[in-house]
Amino acid sequence: MNRITATYDIESPLGVDHAATVLAGEQSTGTFTRLAAETDELRERSAARIESLTITGSSPNPSLPSRKSGPAYERGTVTISWSLDNFGVSLPSLFSTLAGNLFELAELSAIRLLDIGLPKEFALAHPGPQFGADGTRELMGGHEGPVIGTIIKPSVGLSPSETAELVQTLIEAGIDFIKDDELQANGPHCPFEERLKLVSRVINLHAEKTGKRVMYAFNITDEIDQMWRNLDLLQEHDGICAMVCMNSVGLTGLRAVRDRSPMIVHGHRAGWGLFSRSPDIGISFTAFQKLWRLAGADHLHVNGLASKFTESDEVVAQSARSVQQPVCEGDGPQHLAMPVYSSGQTVWQIDPARRLLGNDDFIFCAGGGIMSHPSGIGAGVIALRQAAAAAKEGVDIEMYAANAPELKSALETFKKPSIDL
Amino acid sequence: MNRITATYDIESPLGVDHAATVLAGEQSTGTFTRLAAETDELRERSAARIESLTITGSSPNPSLPSRKSGPAYERGTVTISWSLDNFGVSLPSLFSTLAGNLFELAELSAIRLLDIGLPKEFALAHPGPQFGADGTRELMGGHEGPVIGTIIKPSVGLSPSETAELVQTLIEAGIDFIKDDELQANGPHCPFEERLKLVSRVINLHAEKTGKRVMYAFNITDEIDQMWRNLDLLQEHDGICAMVCMNSVGLTGLRAVRDRSPMIVHGHRAGWGLFSRSPDIGISFTAFQKLWRLAGADHLHVNGLASKFTESDEVVAQSARSVQQPVCEGDGPQHLAMPVYSSGQTVWQIDPARRLLGNDDFIFCAGGGIMSHPSGIGAGVIALRQAAAAAKEGVDIEMYAANAPELKSALETFKKPSIDL
Repeated sequence: MNRITATYDIESPLGVDHAATVLAGEQSTGTFTRLAAETDELRERSAARIESLTITGSSPNPSLPSRKSGPAYERGTVTISWSLDNFGVSLPSLFSTLAGNLFELAELSAIRLLDIGLPKEFALAHPGPQFGADGTRELMGGHEGPVIGTIIKPSVGLSPSETAELVQTLIEAGIDFIKDDELQANGPHCPFEERLKLVSRVINLHAEKTGKRVMYAFNITDEIDQMWRNLDLLQEHDGICAMVCMNSVGLTGLRAVRDRSPMIVHGHRAGWGLFSRSPDIGISFTAFQKLWRLAGADHLHVNGLASKFTESDEVVAQSARSVQQPVCEGDGPQHLAMPVYSSGQTVWQIDPARRLLGNDDFIFCAGGGIMSHPSGIGAGVIALRQAAAAAKEGVDIEMYAANAPELKSALETFKKPSIDL
Repeated sequence: MNRITATYDIESPLGVDHAATVLAGEQSTGTFTRLAAETDELRERSAARIESLTITGSSPNPSLPSRKSGPAYERGTVTISWSLDNFGVSLPSLFSTLAGNLFELAELSAIRLLDIGLPKEFALAHPGPQFGADGTRELMGGHEGPVIGTIIKPSVGLSPSETAELVQTLIEAGIDFIKDDELQANGPHCPFEERLKLVSRVINLHAEKTGKRVMYAFNITDEIDQMWRNLDLLQEHDGICAMVCMNSVGLTGLRAVRDRSPMIVHGHRAGWGLFSRSPDIGISFTAFQKLWRLAGADHLHVNGLASKFTESDEVVAQSARSVQQPVCEGDGPQHLAMPVYSSGQTVWQIDPARRLLGNDDFIFCAGGGIMSHPSGIGAGVIALRQAAAAAKEGVDIEMYAANAPELKSALETFKKPSIDL
């Protein structure tokens, strides 16, 4: 079926049925009056279709302020479809269609895009992740198990040489993966090129000595031309991973990086709360991550279980699973990405993080969860690996700790979080 | 003062004062524990500062769901500042800082970015609009008064030749400006290049014959490389205006167009409801339009008074005014843009639209408000010009209509909208 579907949670003072009709009209052939040129043939070819509709509730008050009011606000789930003939395989045009003016319709007092269904033809037209989990392991020299990572902190303020010193310490502690903070890209106090030079020297020396290549996600976020220059610089210094703040550069910025990148594209979702926090307006991660994968992100941040952020564990679990599921229907390219857990993570979260995926194809970033280990950073990394091994073997983490002193100490140091899954 | 400020409306179960501290920490040097490397010197240099804070209310319930709860949710306005040393003059990095992880903090049960204050240094580092209102008039051959425009409808479904026929009719009717719908960029049924060729032929012939160049905003929205090719094609066909769906291409996409564009960049804000609809999460237009202007948009959609969309007239007025105000503090570049009114506009809205600006430097787009004039499209355009003349002369529109039959007929045809200003 050569159509794209989108499922929305909507609320309307005019009833879900009427509102769905307005929405489908606004996003295809319609306007507020039917024009002469809107012939039956044109409608047959180009009009959006309502594929299904379910009423889920009603409320005496609107969820969002709107120009239109009514005695009750009916809520429901509606699936709309469009022919690929309307916009072809253009990702930006798909976005204008799925997530454009409809968010401002006065007939709607709530609207959230819940999911997107893509035909094979659409997925085939996009590059998707170049490396994914397998490529990540390979670039790291054959890494096994989950990738244990950390973030450069303080987020901003360290100079390039201070950053490189910290990287040296982290590498000696046995870390697999390090990322710049999303706030640190090319600030005057820590210029990208200088940081890249000093950090790469440390990483490359270690790789030569030990054969282990630590993956450092350099934050290349900037204007298009500058991101391309940054990619060139990264390549000169044997970099294998470029981080992009996806909401800061937009879909076309991400794709422009993918098109010129010989390396992993690490997708940071800073700003995600804008799309996700309100139950009444926004886009679900399940839907948005498909667009990011089509545009080429290899790694995608999914938050962490029991994190310092606001999302429920259920949403985090759903997000993490979603990036490992095929991007389109049928036998098209799957374009799988690698989930990145982060924010307030410790040894306690590895087992549930692994269990919800059923595999080790994830990156697990901990900051305080490594740095604050009583026996030092090295012990912090070892403890996380022990927790990952316990999870893989299906052994209870506290039992496993009996023969794993670093893990035991970590379990005693970090508070057991309450995880709702 | 070499600092950027951002003002937020926030709500927190932990009190506004505490929440502001968490926010400032998250968006600069802090993390959930204070690290050894976070020295006093580093904090002095790089930490975000709370510049001011006002408590505005309290509620027993949180506005948005969150992990943290409390007996009451305090609301307030807080202004935070950052040194330019943190991120330099990079627009994407500014975005990661002002509108990044903070939207997901569990300490906040509401957060909206209300405004941004930019120092001259920041504005100087960005190209800004290349043409603005003066350039728009000049490219149209010295146009006077507000620019009267319309949108190709149906939004999608017309072939290139059907589009060109409609353009011919509109031009003969005396229209100043026509734009593609945001849903129509380069669909298989109406390919960009073919549409451009046929539409340009009509426009160029008219310009040769009459000296009047109608401005057509071709929707070039696509991936970066394709947008650049579209710009080249536009130039080959004497195009003077390229339309970009800013939320579909992102800030770097908009800037990439500006950097290569020899013509007007018409900024469409489809998807804006995502940022604006909730009172509890989002970014105000006042704030976001500064970023779009820095990136180079000449025209910016601001919705219309008494429109089919959900925004209040007060917000529309504020939006329209904001794009005509200096982008930065002090004597830096003003980077002024031209507001575009649209959506359900008729002769009734011109006077209030002009009055709130105090000038004619705006584009006024009407669809049904032109097409549905009882004496035809030509009379529809004339009626709008008569309404604009009445507004400029400060004459009551109904009195003016006594000697303006097209306007009289339009006033009788279109219902007088209720405008709340």
